[in-house]
Amino acid sequence: MGLLLDQIQQHGDVKKLPAEELPALCEEIRETIISTVADNGGHLASNLGVVELCVALHRVLDFSKDSLVWDVGHQSYTHKLLTGRARMFSTLRQENGLSGFPSREESDCDPFTSGHSSASISAALGLAYAKEMRGEDGHVVAVIGDGALTGGLAYEGLNNAGRLHRNLIVILNDNTMSISKNVGSIARYLTYVRSRPAYLNAKDSIESVLLHIPKIGNRLASAIRRVKKAIKRNIFNTTIFEDLGFTYYGPIDGHDLPRMISLLQSVKEIHKPVLVHVRTYKGRGYKYAEDNPRAYHGLSAFDREKGLDEATQGNFSCKFGEALCDLAAKDERICAVTAAMETGTGLVPFHELFKSRFFDVGIAEGHAVTFCAGLARGGMIPVFSVYSTFLQRSYDQLLHDVALQRLKIILAIDRAGIVGEDGKTHQGIFDTGFLRTVPDAVVYAPAYYDELSRMLQICVEGDDRLYAVRYPRGQALYRPAGYAPTDDSFSVFGEDGAPVALVTFGRLFSFAAQAAEQLSREGISCRILKLNRVIPMDPKAVESVLDAPHVLFFEEGVRSGGIGEGFGDMLMERGFSGTFTLHAIEEGFVGHAPMSRTLARLGLDQDGMVRAVRSVLRTGNVK
Amino acid sequence: MGLLLDQIQQHGDVKKLPAEELPALCEEIRETIISTVADNGGHLASNLGVVELCVALHRVLDFSKDSLVWDVGHQSYTHKLLTGRARMFSTLRQENGLSGFPSREESDCDPFTSGHSSASISAALGLAYAKEMRGEDGHVVAVIGDGALTGGLAYEGLNNAGRLHRNLIVILNDNTMSISKNVGSIARYLTYVRSRPAYLNAKDSIESVLLHIPKIGNRLASAIRRVKKAIKRNIFNTTIFEDLGFTYYGPIDGHDLPRMISLLQSVKEIHKPVLVHVRTYKGRGYKYAEDNPRAYHGLSAFDREKGLDEATQGNFSCKFGEALCDLAAKDERICAVTAAMETGTGLVPFHELFKSRFFDVGIAEGHAVTFCAGLARGGMIPVFSVYSTFLQRSYDQLLHDVALQRLKIILAIDRAGIVGEDGKTHQGIFDTGFLRTVPDAVVYAPAYYDELSRMLQICVEGDDRLYAVRYPRGQALYRPAGYAPTDDSFSVFGEDGAPVALVTFGRLFSFAAQAAEQLSREGISCRILKLNRVIPMDPKAVESVLDAPHVLFFEEGVRSGGIGEGFGDMLMERGFSGTFTLHAIEEGFVGHAPMSRTLARLGLDQDGMVRAVRSVLRTGNVK
Repeated sequence: MGLLLDQIQQHGDVKKLPAEELPALCEEIRETIISTVADNGGHLASNLGVVELCVALHRVLDFSKDSLVWDVGHQSYTHKLLTGRARMFSTLRQENGLSGFPSREESDCDPFTSGHSSASISAALGLAYAKEMRGEDGHVVAVIGDGALTGGLAYEGLNNAGRLHRNLIVILNDNTMSISKNVGSIARYLTYVRSRPAYLNAKDSIESVLLHIPKIGNRLASAIRRVKKAIKRNIFNTTIFEDLGFTYYGPIDGHDLPRMISLLQSVKEIHKPVLVHVRTYKGRGYKYAEDNPRAYHGLSAFDREKGLDEATQGNFSCKFGEALCDLAAKDERICAVTAAMETGTGLVPFHELFKSRFFDVGIAEGHAVTFCAGLARGGMIPVFSVYSTFLQRSYDQLLHDVALQRLKIILAIDRAGIVGEDGKTHQGIFDTGFLRTVPDAVVYAPAYYDELSRMLQICVEGDDRLYAVRYPRGQALYRPAGYAPTDDSFSVFGEDGAPVALVTFGRLFSFAAQAAEQLSREGISCRILKLNRVIPMDPKAVESVLDAPHVLFFEEGVRSGGIGEGFGDMLMERGFSGTFTLHAIEEGFVGHAPMSRTLARLGLDQDGMVRAVRSVLRTGNVK
Repeated sequence: MGLLLDQIQQHGDVKKLPAEELPALCEEIRETIISTVADNGGHLASNLGVVELCVALHRVLDFSKDSLVWDVGHQSYTHKLLTGRARMFSTLRQENGLSGFPSREESDCDPFTSGHSSASISAALGLAYAKEMRGEDGHVVAVIGDGALTGGLAYEGLNNAGRLHRNLIVILNDNTMSISKNVGSIARYLTYVRSRPAYLNAKDSIESVLLHIPKIGNRLASAIRRVKKAIKRNIFNTTIFEDLGFTYYGPIDGHDLPRMISLLQSVKEIHKPVLVHVRTYKGRGYKYAEDNPRAYHGLSAFDREKGLDEATQGNFSCKFGEALCDLAAKDERICAVTAAMETGTGLVPFHELFKSRFFDVGIAEGHAVTFCAGLARGGMIPVFSVYSTFLQRSYDQLLHDVALQRLKIILAIDRAGIVGEDGKTHQGIFDTGFLRTVPDAVVYAPAYYDELSRMLQICVEGDDRLYAVRYPRGQALYRPAGYAPTDDSFSVFGEDGAPVALVTFGRLFSFAAQAAEQLSREGISCRILKLNRVIPMDPKAVESVLDAPHVLFFEEGVRSGGIGEGFGDMLMERGFSGTFTLHAIEEGFVGHAPMSRTLARLGLDQDGMVRAVRSVLRTGNVK
């Protein structure tokens, strides 16, 4: 931590620094962010892009009464450094350390926990109306990226905010790039707006042109009056944001600190919603990230002197991408759809090979699913690859636009299960629960890459319905010798008469296999039921453990409404008389920590399974 | 059915009629719609508004290759009459009869089943790209109302469609009114656009003004050139739709059939996405509906000569509205939020009494929840009243913006359970399932109005978390003598040692009480466990039936992931040794029919419960 950051113990302290020290402060902040992300992993380019913007906001806002909502929140590091969290910043994204996202639990200066995109305007509007109804002072500011503007929730927020009769400041942090390249018409539109002279200047110059047209003759004067009126209505009301009721300022240079501060001070005085269009550069101040901001979006730890290691190891995302390319080469109906996650979900090769069948729809998961439904109705086989946590945004579309009309779309659900350092807002632990409520959905859970390929192929070959293949972040784990994937909906391993049956699916199978081996050495024999298809449950899978005295189910997902609960229900329906113990996630939202540590803490790793078996054998019952 | 409709046996037949007969055809269509809706109930005003628009589309489109997607679909009656369904039209919304919404199962002329708002552009875009990739001919048209344009999904669709390089026609059916009065900036914006001269005319007249400015002097000429350029860029690119990449035409009179036909014929030739802004009047041709289109939106059967009966009977929606007013009078923090369902959810009195605390956010359920989260963070107690089926749109926001940060918002979930004639797209049978996956959510299910009030009050008084009270469409049913609501999470009735325990919640309690009375007369004694709080399940409720030889659970909701499954899981965990039979909805999407008939068919009424008990006593096990 540098000399200047050291003086900033809490919000407001940044106002005590002389203006001429601010550039040095920004440099210190960048240094701190780069070195911390290099050590801990995290979001880099987005945070480097908003250093001046955030410092400007802190010079202008009063955090004892004003509220600042960061959309998505992966750009909130500077804000953390300026609000009493600089000393703890080295714990970023570590277990019991600072979250990588704004968090109400962490600080009163974070009014709204975030992680998912496009929600900031709605939240800020709620805060603004609450202040109005309670007669409280204070400004509300939402900072939203151009990428997040592709999400319908942002538009719903804008549509509702435009008629507010008090100050609400929406800052459009336009860095021409969301996580993937920004797509769609709004992106093109912003390119057009960006290329114009700044709004106030344009207004001035056109006014002066009009003033200099001499008044000559009635006919011309009348013509000019009409033209003037048209211009007034159109030039002075030209952006979408003004159409939606906002007063628009911009575009202005988001790295020009004095100008930002002065503009923010003025717009605070406007008793209406205001949109300030700020132009920033992702990765600003770190050469590698400036050159390749997309690669420096969300990172694991790296060597800051050398930048990222180019070698990519195999992981589920890239193996999915490869498998989909293989299938698409054989079947021209296969399309790939992503919601701004081309890189994250492994679709870069597909995009290169099958450009006309690749669709990045922006951060618009609802649209992605309904669009897939349209593609399917038109005779294509769309595959929507999406992180589990973001698929939550598509729940209604899955029900209403896909399942209800029995259309065949395939979900490739990436980051299913515990994701690690991104924490509470990003864990993929709900999809098993909500997909169980979708009629006739079929969901597979591979533990290995070859299984993923095979399951994807089964989906492609299947009849008309919603399919999903869900797989975790990162790499496949331990594989018992001789293990081979099967087309069957489940596989059984171990001794038939073994007193203990471990039931699980996905990567937890690796831990179950290791636990069984360990227990075997202790003289406890187990069988393992590995579920390949988790929805719908195969009754034969349930029946394969019906004679077991002890059934233990391990699930990397929410307990309530999850796979294990349904499994237990089917056991009971069939007159099961042994003990059934369900180990799943009961703590709600799971905090950030390395994946392996979290799984251990939840009792879902090898050790946890061994302990659970010993316990059930000791007590004849649970935990 | 009239003379002309009689000649229309299938799609395309309308093209065979001479143009001069079309006005008479429109009159016949209106007659048929009015009399059928008067008999069967249904959507009236929206259908009367699009008769000419739909006839024009049918004169221009070729349904052997073109696709027409109706947004929401409550305006598709004319389309049904023109596509071979006129003879069956009297069965509209009746069991085994025509659906009140477009349905792929019903006709190849309905490419996309709909019911929820704002999805048409996404679906149409999918169909258009599929045609392109498959090298197929055919136009794709989406018809979307101005109300549906408040939904973020529509914006996501527009954003993605704007860059299409082939024809896609979006028809904005602007009737200045969605189900409730349209709100937000986009509504005000459309008012502005509507007031302008039609686009093509405006373009012509401004061109002519410019041509008539004499060329005088260099300075003026240069000034005028600059002005001209500004005008070109701004006048000729003035609507939001053009900013989003669409070619815009309108507004045009949607009841002017020849003009509509001619315009549609031209726009079919444009190799780009086109938006045609059509001005229509809801209820056109039926005086009562023209005068009060909101009241004539969705209807039960009525006397067509007299119009609607003004007397409103008590039902859950209006009792909720009254209860909320009572609470809001005592607590200034209480706000009401609706997503364009002020009337349907009983909020009219609240709006009148507490104008500043009432928020209609448009058809934007995602925003509604995140906005509530902002209100809650700001110190208010927001109550979002919403139909169960539409709450599906808020799933991620409930998790991410409310539950994750433990904010207190209250959901008033109306139309929970079977809704009757609206059918598959509108049944409220998934909320129990998806709310079970939301950490720390608390959900109540009243059977009676006084319970609803009391439960609402409990939510208002509760700590910080997501609360919901879910209640059915229509009126409260049978109430056993002496029944009184309680603050306890469950109530037990009947004999302690009775061999049969009926477990249920919500209105099914009435049937359970009647079934128990009937069985008692046959000498079979039952106890009833009435769950008042269904999420989280009270372990004591489960334990109260642990000694019962037979537990039968009845649930008006999806089985997989629902309340009963969790109940069974808790029974098993506690070593329950009797039989557990779960009667819930397993058929997926439930078709349209009167509520009582559907409940009977599903075995969830008094008769079904009696049968289930007899069966379980006979076989010692299920069904």
